[in-house]
Amino acid sequence: MSDGSPIPETRVLAVASHVVSGYVGNKIAVFSLQSLGCDVAALNTVQFSNHTGYKQWTGSKVSAQEITDLYQGLKQSYLDDFDMMLSGYVPGAPALEAVGQIGQELKRKAKSKPGSFFWVLDPVMGDNGSLYVAPDVVPVYKSLVPYANLVLPNQFEAELLSEVQITDMPSIARAIQVMHERYGIPHIVITSVSLPHPDHPVSSLSVVGSTMTSDRKARAFKIVFPAIDCYFSGTGDMFAALMAVRMREAVYNRGKDSQQQQQQGSALMERESWLSEDSVDALDLPLARAAEKVLASMHEVLTKTAERMEGAMRKAGEAGMNADGVGSGTGAEEKKMHLLKSKAAELRLVRHLDSLRFPQVEFRATRLYMG
Amino acid sequence: MSDGSPIPETRVLAVASHVVSGYVGNKIAVFSLQSLGCDVAALNTVQFSNHTGYKQWTGSKVSAQEITDLYQGLKQSYLDDFDMMLSGYVPGAPALEAVGQIGQELKRKAKSKPGSFFWVLDPVMGDNGSLYVAPDVVPVYKSLVPYANLVLPNQFEAELLSEVQITDMPSIARAIQVMHERYGIPHIVITSVSLPHPDHPVSSLSVVGSTMTSDRKARAFKIVFPAIDCYFSGTGDMFAALMAVRMREAVYNRGKDSQQQQQQGSALMERESWLSEDSVDALDLPLARAAEKVLASMHEVLTKTAERMEGAMRKAGEAGMNADGVGSGTGAEEKKMHLLKSKAAELRLVRHLDSLRFPQVEFRATRLYMG
Repeated sequence: MSDGSPIPETRVLAVASHVVSGYVGNKIAVFSLQSLGCDVAALNTVQFSNHTGYKQWTGSKVSAQEITDLYQGLKQSYLDDFDMMLSGYVPGAPALEAVGQIGQELKRKAKSKPGSFFWVLDPVMGDNGSLYVAPDVVPVYKSLVPYANLVLPNQFEAELLSEVQITDMPSIARAIQVMHERYGIPHIVITSVSLPHPDHPVSSLSVVGSTMTSDRKARAFKIVFPAIDCYFSGTGDMFAALMAVRMREAVYNRGKDSQQQQQQGSALMERESWLSEDSVDALDLPLARAAEKVLASMHEVLTKTAERMEGAMRKAGEAGMNADGVGSGTGAEEKKMHLLKSKAAELRLVRHLDSLRFPQVEFRATRLYMG
Repeated sequence: MSDGSPIPETRVLAVASHVVSGYVGNKIAVFSLQSLGCDVAALNTVQFSNHTGYKQWTGSKVSAQEITDLYQGLKQSYLDDFDMMLSGYVPGAPALEAVGQIGQELKRKAKSKPGSFFWVLDPVMGDNGSLYVAPDVVPVYKSLVPYANLVLPNQFEAELLSEVQITDMPSIARAIQVMHERYGIPHIVITSVSLPHPDHPVSSLSVVGSTMTSDRKARAFKIVFPAIDCYFSGTGDMFAALMAVRMREAVYNRGKDSQQQQQQGSALMERESWLSEDSVDALDLPLARAAEKVLASMHEVLTKTAERMEGAMRKAGEAGMNADGVGSGTGAEEKKMHLLKSKAAELRLVRHLDSLRFPQVEFRATRLYMG
């Protein structure tokens, strides 16, 4: 694009939580999308002072009715002309159902123009073996996945959706196949897979992605990248936002050989769900190209965050030694250190715009054998 | 800065309205601040589907109590370490008082370290001779201006604050002098001044700025720039956000001649309110340098928005000719055209990141004689 954006004009509806301070949910997704040139409508499902990893926060949730009202407000003023939707954390089953209604309606509206609407659904339910939403949220997500175009579960969420226990690469391949078949979901990326595997060193993670064929067979790839020994919040939200843009970019640039296509984007953009023809190999999928770029951005931002965090925590530790009352008593000290650490671990996005916009791809997709 | 940001690490509390779609209030301020490298805590005072210029919207306001609670949430987790605060539209006097309490508390906290906190206050009250807030909001703003460091009224708001009727350049100079004296407000920029003046062609506007001396005498300048014949919403919010960053940049880079200063920023950063010494001429003020850059960014974004708007409205007009029911009846047609025009006039910020980051300064500050 002549204006430096990697994608054509793109209007995205982003539905997720808002935090005043820090970078999770829409707070990180909106900036990620905007910095790559998207016109973002940001529908915030909560306004909290900070993310819940701090273990204390203030603020309030937006009701299901209010979510519906905000969408009706957009509709009545011709502001519902979205090319994409990105949905993240939604508090509770009724609110999630309201968001699901929006996604389904936008999908219905786009039916006569294949490829003109694409829904990226992040099924935020839990992590590391435990739910952090109410149990009645799980069936709602299961009912929504068939309407989405790209779903981004983490390993635990993939288990919930597929009902396959993931213990190794073959079982992850099975989980992907089950999700394609059961939900008809065209594109899947499982984020943060941590599994023993020959080409998987101890300190590495991978993402596993697949775009199904016309008969719902998986075309799977994995990308292995070095793990950073630190827990960051908001990585899933950042990943989802960047995937939305980079997927559109990869599809837009697909097979641009003629001059006409240079101007109009690829024919793939006009296929339902941007679904590559069956002849396209797993390693040649737009989804793989997109995931490579996203991981490159993520790795750069996380590395820079971790580097700076060390310094911040050293300073906090020193300050703690001669704390003025706040640091007295072990419990209070521990609490303060947890809060300072949470703050220092906030993703350092805004000072690293170039990592979002012009990442250096280092980690490439490789084949995932379907077991 | 090595990371491409024009300013050192800067943590800003931005308090203003949020719209799902479009670009006013925090929706435009947060991106403007972030794209120039600020870590922004965004406290949203409303969540509306769209701005009120559409004449219809949905959504709700945040109460005074909730604003206070969100700030308490930041405080309890050591997240209130702000270098700057930017406050814009706040719905109603009680909510504005709550925001005022936050500004005053942050100012008190910073008292022992001059220059370590800077409050940019946009006294959003009305425009073109009429109030668009409740009348009881006006005295609240008057009570808050003495705590702010930079205030950004438009011409009408400057009249309200100074109680000077502005009819020409000498009366605007008087209004500025009155505000410095009465409120002790160090920096003032009056935005969008439209007055007859010899060097002021019919189709031009100006901003008028001043930084007071130690005895509260105005040092005033004006910058004349071509008007764009179109009404845009959000320009005041964008102006305020960019002024916050560019003022910090101009102060930071002030008189950087020694290597030590190159690394640490200028001595001016450690002066209360970043108040330039009395010997500094109006045309050499950091405020003047900042305003020049901000106007350059604004002019680029507005020009690009206006260019594209023409095409969008032509398309809408053609579509209106064969509208499917919606366009029938003159009232309904007029309403639809107003809505489409409002959408087309949304500022095109995200596709023009370079206009925010690297504007080409064309319009320079000139002296404003104090009559």
